[in-house]
Amino acid sequence: MPSARPIVVLLTDFGGNSPYVGAMKGALLAVSPGANLVDLSHGVPAQDVESAAWLLRLHYDSFPPSSVFVAVVDPGVGSDRRRLVARAGERFFLAPDNGLLSGILQCEPDREIRVLENEAFWREQRSATFHGRDIFAPAAAYLAGGAALAEFGRPCDDPVRLEMSAPVRSVDGLAGRIVLADDFGNLITDIGEGELSEFCREMKSKPSDLRVDLGGRILSGLSRIYAEAPGGEAIALIGSSGQLEIAINRGNAREELGLEPGASVRLFTPAKEVAP
Amino acid sequence: MPSARPIVVLLTDFGGNSPYVGAMKGALLAVSPGANLVDLSHGVPAQDVESAAWLLRLHYDSFPPSSVFVAVVDPGVGSDRRRLVARAGERFFLAPDNGLLSGILQCEPDREIRVLENEAFWREQRSATFHGRDIFAPAAAYLAGGAALAEFGRPCDDPVRLEMSAPVRSVDGLAGRIVLADDFGNLITDIGEGELSEFCREMKSKPSDLRVDLGGRILSGLSRIYAEAPGGEAIALIGSSGQLEIAINRGNAREELGLEPGASVRLFTPAKEVAP
Amino acid sequence: MPSARPIVVLLTDFGGNSPYVGAMKGALLAVSPGANLVDLSHGVPAQDVESAAWLLRLHYDSFPPSSVFVAVVDPGVGSDRRRLVARAGERFFLAPDNGLLSGILQCEPDREIRVLENEAFWREQRSATFHGRDIFAPAAAYLAGGAALAEFGRPCDDPVRLEMSAPVRSVDGLAGRIVLADDFGNLITDIGEGELSEFCREMKSKPSDLRVDLGGRILSGLSRIYAEAPGGEAIALIGSSGQLEIAINRGNAREELGLEPGASVRLFTPAKEVAP
Repeated sequence: MPSARPIVVLLTDFGGNSPYVGAMKGALLAVSPGANLVDLSHGVPAQDVESAAWLLRLHYDSFPPSSVFVAVVDPGVGSDRRRLVARAGERFFLAPDNGLLSGILQCEPDREIRVLENEAFWREQRSATFHGRDIFAPAAAYLAGGAALAEFGRPCDDPVRLEMSAPVRSVDGLAGRIVLADDFGNLITDIGEGELSEFCREMKSKPSDLRVDLGGRILSGLSRIYAEAPGGEAIALIGSSGQLEIAINRGNAREELGLEPGASVRLFTPAKEVAP
Repeated sequence: MPSARPIVVLLTDFGGNSPYVGAMKGALLAVSPGANLVDLSHGVPAQDVESAAWLLRLHYDSFPPSSVFVAVVDPGVGSDRRRLVARAGERFFLAPDNGLLSGILQCEPDREIRVLENEAFWREQRSATFHGRDIFAPAAAYLAGGAALAEFGRPCDDPVRLEMSAPVRSVDGLAGRIVLADDFGNLITDIGEGELSEFCREMKSKPSDLRVDLGGRILSGLSRIYAEAPGGEAIALIGSSGQLEIAINRGNAREELGLEPGASVRLFTPAKEVAP
Repeated sequence: MPSARPIVVLLTDFGGNSPYVGAMKGALLAVSPGANLVDLSHGVPAQDVESAAWLLRLHYDSFPPSSVFVAVVDPGVGSDRRRLVARAGERFFLAPDNGLLSGILQCEPDREIRVLENEAFWREQRSATFHGRDIFAPAAAYLAGGAALAEFGRPCDDPVRLEMSAPVRSVDGLAGRIVLADDFGNLITDIGEGELSEFCREMKSKPSDLRVDLGGRILSGLSRIYAEAPGGEAIALIGSSGQLEIAINRGNAREELGLEPGASVRLFTPAKEVAP
C-alpha cells in the first residue's frame, strides 16, 4: 500500500445526507488523516445486500490498485455475524460477512480473506449498533496505512455467498433478470457482455437481430448508444459496466415501462421465416 | 493545528446536491488548497437550528482533534446576528450565533469563544445572503491553516443558547422527547445513556425491565441491537451515539409508528405486583 | 498547474447517490491519485444542459485559479458530438460540446478551446455510453497533473453555444426569466446585478422603488436579505451569485408561488402619480 495518499472508497445504505457517513469518515481520518476518501454510493436501498453486491461488482475496477473499499450494508450489526477483510485481485475490501462481497468473489479468483477480529484495529469506544464507524472504518484506515492483512484475523475459507442472479440458457433463449436501476431509470440486468456474445455465437445471430422480451413487450435488436433511438423509445444496449441494460433515450425506463429489479428479461432470436 | 492536511467538516441545511456546498468548498480551497474536506451532513431540515445543534453534538467526537467544523444553518444571514468561532475541547467550530453550537457547549466546558469579526479572514467580495461561502468558509480555512483564535475577534461570553430538549424526572418515570430521525427512520431521543443508567439505579431496575411509553404504545425492555427483535417489531435501544433510540428491525419506525421529532417518549418501571 | 494537490470539480446530472459519480472519481484517481476532488453538484435535472450551463456560470469563480472542472450532462454520449477541453480565464473545463460551456464562454473572453480527441489521455477500455468515466475523467486528471492544453487536440473555434436566457429591455421595463431553483425553493433569474443597476440608472429609479411582476403578482421594492421580510412573504433580492432572485423568508418560493424555471419575471417602475 505504498501510495502517499491511500484511497478509501465507501459504499453504504445510509443515504447520501446521512451524518453516519460523516461519522465513518471522521473515524477513518482519526486513524489515517491523509486518506483520500471517495464515496461510491450511499444510496443502496436500506438493508439490500444483493444490490450492494452488484454495485460493488460493477464498479470496483474503476478504482486504482491498492484502493480499500469499506462496504457497510449490515442488517445483522451486533449479532454474531462475522466481519471480513479481504484482498481480491489488486484491491482490498471490508464488509460484514453477509454476502456483500459475493460479486467481487465471483470476479476475482486470486484472493485472501480474513476474519476482521483483531480488536487492536478497532475503535476503543464501540457501540453495538454502528460497526461501520467503530470497527470497519478504523480497520480500513489501518489497512490503507499499510497494516498486513494477516494481522487482522485468521483466514476465512467459507465467506457467506449470496446466490447472485445469473442468466439461464434455454434451447432458444437466454433468460435473465433486472438487478439494479440507476437514477436515470436505466435498468441493469444480470446478462453480461460475454454471455450475450456466446449466445449470439451459438445461435449464429447478430446483436442487431436479437429480440428482447420484457414480460410481453418485445424490443428488436440491440442499440449501441442511448442517442441512437428516437426520444421516448425503449432500447436494449450494453451499458457502461458491460451488462445488458434497458433504457429509454431521454426518458426513464423504470417509470415508463413499470419495471423494477427482479423483473424478467429474455433474449431470443426470431423464428426463421420458412420459404413457402 | 499541526497536521499536514487539516480536516474541515461541513454541516449545512443546503441539501446534498446543492451547488452552494460546492461553492463553500471552492472558497475554502481558495484559501487552503490542501484541506481535507468532509461532509457531516447537508440534510438538516431547512433552517432547523435545533436539529443541527443535535447532529453536531452527537457526531463531533467521531472526528480527530484539531478538526475544524463549519456549521451553516443561518436563517438570519445578513441581519445583525453575530458569527462565532470557537475552540471547544480539542476541536474548532464556526457558526452563526443562533444557538447552533448549544449542544457542543453543553458537552465541552473547556472552551474559548470569539466573535468572527476580523474581515481580514473574509472573502474580499461578499454577498449579503451567503456568509457560508463569503465569511465562514474562508475563516475556517485560515483557522485550519494555523491562524490563532484570538486573531478572529473579541471574546464572546454570551453566545446564544438554545434550550436543548432534556429529559425530565418524575416520581416514577423519565420523560423525554424524540429529537432526530435518521434516514432509516430510527428515532433518536434526548435521553442519554447516563441519564438512563441513573434512572435504573434509582428505581433499582434493569434496562430489560423498563417500559417505554410512546404516546400509548408500550414497549417492554430495552434491546441491545436491531437484529435482536423479529423483523417488524418496534424496539428501544441505546443507539450508536449513546442516546435512547426507537427502531423497527428491518423497518422504518418513523413511518410505521407515525412518530416525528418532538413526540414524547416516557420511560417507567412497571408497578410491582403485590402479594395478595 | 503547479499546486501539489490539483483541484478537480465535478458537475453532473447523475444524482447525488449515483455510483457513476464514484466510478468517475475512481477513473480520475487512477491517473492522479493525489487529486483533491470536489462536487459542485450532481443534482442537475437529467439531461438539462442549460441548467448545468447556468450552474457552472454562477459558481465557477468560487474555486481557485487552476481548478479543473469536469461537467458531464451528456444526452448525446457516444454519438458524433465532439468533446471539449478549454482554458477560460484562469480555470480549466472539460465537457461534451453541447452548449454546456456557454455560460462560461459568456463570462471569460480570454480562452483557449481544444477538441478533446487525443486518445492517449483516455481510458484504455472504453464503453460507448459513459464518456464521463472513460474519457472526461482521465483527461481531467492528466490536465490537472500538468499536461498542456495543446496536447489534447486541435483548436476549436466553433463550440456549440446555447442561446442562454437573457433579460430584454422595453420602454418601461426589464423582462427576464427564472433560470434555476435551489433546494430552498429560491428562484434565480437571468437578471444580473449589472443589468438591474443600469435599468435603475436609466429609469432614474432606486431598487427600493422597483416593482417585480411575477405573472400578475406584484412585489414592491427589492430587499437586501431574506430576514428583512416577515416569514411567509415573497421578496425579490440580489442573491449570492449576483442575480435577481425571488424568495420567501423561511419559506419555499417555488412551491408557494407555483413558479418554475422558465417563468417570466418583469421589473418595472410604477407610474408617477400626476398632480391633480
